[in-house]
Amino acid sequence: MAQEAAPQTHTACTGVDLGITRVFALLGKRWTGLVVAVLGDGPAHFAELRRAIPGISERMLSDRLAELAEAGLVLREVDEGPPLRVRYQLTESGCALGPAMTELRTWAERHLPATPPGTC
Amino acid sequence: MAQEAAPQTHTACTGVDLGITRVFALLGKRWTGLVVAVLGDGPAHFAELRRAIPGISERMLSDRLAELAEAGLVLREVDEGPPLRVRYQLTESGCALGPAMTELRTWAERHLPATPPGTC
Repeated sequence: MAQEAAPQTHTACTGVDLGITRVFALLGKRWTGLVVAVLGDGPAHFAELRRAIPGISERMLSDRLAELAEAGLVLREVDEGPPLRVRYQLTESGCALGPAMTELRTWAERHLPATPPGTC
Repeated sequence: MAQEAAPQTHTACTGVDLGITRVFALLGKRWTGLVVAVLGDGPAHFAELRRAIPGISERMLSDRLAELAEAGLVLREVDEGPPLRVRYQLTESGCALGPAMTELRTWAERHLPATPPGTC
């Protein structure tokens, strides 16, 4: 007896897919995307990251870096001093976000209105 | 007298660029990316969106949809009832996020570990 095909459903879970859910569990937190974007330009020390992201607090930056390290996107390296400093850089996984970041940047230029010129 | 070249600086503002800042002012809020992802599959009523995004509250979904509408990504349409229902769909700008969402999804499949199998 021929086996019947399973009925077609829109998605297995009729909900948002797990890949996108995982992405935004990470990037859907304030500052995380900006930290990744800044590190996309190259390794940076904690103080440099703070300067590059106006408004972020020391505590928030520290939390976001810890989350990114735990997710395998960021590597933390201690520069023996003095003064002792901590340097952060993207891992291979973090670097692999580059094309998506480029897409987002291109999209913003076309579709998100510019903020009024700032004083930077 | 020859004019001296301006000293090379890393970026004009030595900070994160405005495009990425604008993107994550929007997508760096909990749920927003998931709402965009679900609407990427087609228009949906409020209740359908809520079902598709496990854990989101009515209030949060309502706030996120209002922010997305204000940013020009989502269109709100009233279906005269009864029962009266509100349908949401991506605008052209919202749809244009598709390639970036695809990049993010592809990246997650390769670089973010899967969550343990759920019960959905």
